[in-house]
Amino acid sequence: MCVNILDMQRELKERAGIFVSARDIERTLAALQTTTDIWTTVERSQVPMRVLCALLGILHEQNLIAIEDTQLILTDAGRAFCHEHQIAPWHATTCHTCNGRGVDIASLAGVVSAFREIARNRPEAIQDFDQGYVTEETTLARVAFLWWRGDLDGKEIIVLGDDDLVSIACALTGKPKRVVALDIDDRLISFIDAVSNERELTNLTTLQHDLREPLPDELVGKFDVFFTDPTE
Amino acid sequence: MCVNILDMQRELKERAGIFVSARDIERTLAALQTTTDIWTTVERSQVPMRVLCALLGILHEQNLIAIEDTQLILTDAGRAFCHEHQIAPWHATTCHTCNGRGVDIASLAGVVSAFREIARNRPEAIQDFDQGYVTEETTLARVAFLWWRGDLDGKEIIVLGDDDLVSIACALTGKPKRVVALDIDDRLISFIDAVSNERELTNLTTLQHDLREPLPDELVGKFDVFFTDPTE
Repeated sequence: MCVNILDMQRELKERAGIFVSARDIERTLAALQTTTDIWTTVERSQVPMRVLCALLGILHEQNLIAIEDTQLILTDAGRAFCHEHQIAPWHATTCHTCNGRGVDIASLAGVVSAFREIARNRPEAIQDFDQGYVTEETTLARVAFLWWRGDLDGKEIIVLGDDDLVSIACALTGKPKRVVALDIDDRLISFIDAVSNERELTNLTTLQHDLREPLPDELVGKFDVFFTDPTE
Repeated sequence: MCVNILDMQRELKERAGIFVSARDIERTLAALQTTTDIWTTVERSQVPMRVLCALLGILHEQNLIAIEDTQLILTDAGRAFCHEHQIAPWHATTCHTCNGRGVDIASLAGVVSAFREIARNRPEAIQDFDQGYVTEETTLARVAFLWWRGDLDGKEIIVLGDDDLVSIACALTGKPKRVVALDIDDRLISFIDAVSNERELTNLTTLQHDLREPLPDELVGKFDVFFTDPTE
């Protein structure tokens, strides 16, 4: 029985070997006072998905939240817990223009509209490869971030798994020296190759590869930057 | 003689015990292609001041930059070095609304104008205590960030050295349980006390204290959050 935050931390540690900070728990409960959606909870709490899922399990067991369909609902006991522990509702202080990311996708100029047009024809995400791509805005923001950090212009970039089409967005800027996308999914490889040909993105190439296997020797140590969006 | 990036890294390591990454050097040279101002160089390169200063020393010795008054100027040799190493000029991808911070000070509502009004009468920064306060916008952005991270609302906060007046901005939100500002400078202590009285900020108190000495026992372990802006 978890009666306080310290007990929840111990429970998660013992049961799942997961370290969750007291502030993670507070931020999760702060978020759950303002949304019933799990993705919004991830975004607002800033708690990693794996930790959050384990924590939600304990909150559910303790009857602090109810789960109805896919909605997470704070119970009366949950609200009382927040009140008792002085956990206030999440408050929006993030920038509305960039959604808190700090980067402006408009800085990519012509790339934005070109990428959105390309992404309309992308292969559907399939569960076999744990796909589930991020929004076009997120992909573009990642490229703007790479650029800001000095990881785009003049660089050789390898993308490890690319259902988000980061390789295409990078190549469209015309800035990298070379972009190589690796994926197990031949639908994605064909799609990226087709875009590369159509748009004459001469520095964008692909390799169909199962990343459970080692990288091919000819690719080892040949890049300045790697990019990946790992599974949760 | 430093002829390449690896040599610069070695030189800094041997001479000053400072680790500088190759990307730090690249980002510094990317920034110096777009500004001659040192503060703008810090902002654009994202290299810590102490590292940047040591690096600028080496760039100067190597005649890659010239220093005129307070301006940093890439020499012809510097431009050739950038070209040879494919170091492109810094490119603005940061959000214009929040200046790349990701937080929106407008989220603090009434606090913004009240804080600006208060800050007009602040004590002048003096060198004796290595003061040199950040802009009002930066202080407000720090408070918005604290709020976003769950470090403001309902919290007990200790501010270690406060020429930036973070304690006042925190208290003005009405959200913290308690804010205590420590500073060696009695002008600052008097100023914060006067504001606290005038504005009836009941949760804002101060303590004149030299932080080279240990914290008073009664303050140890009594806070949820500490805030400080250390010297470079």
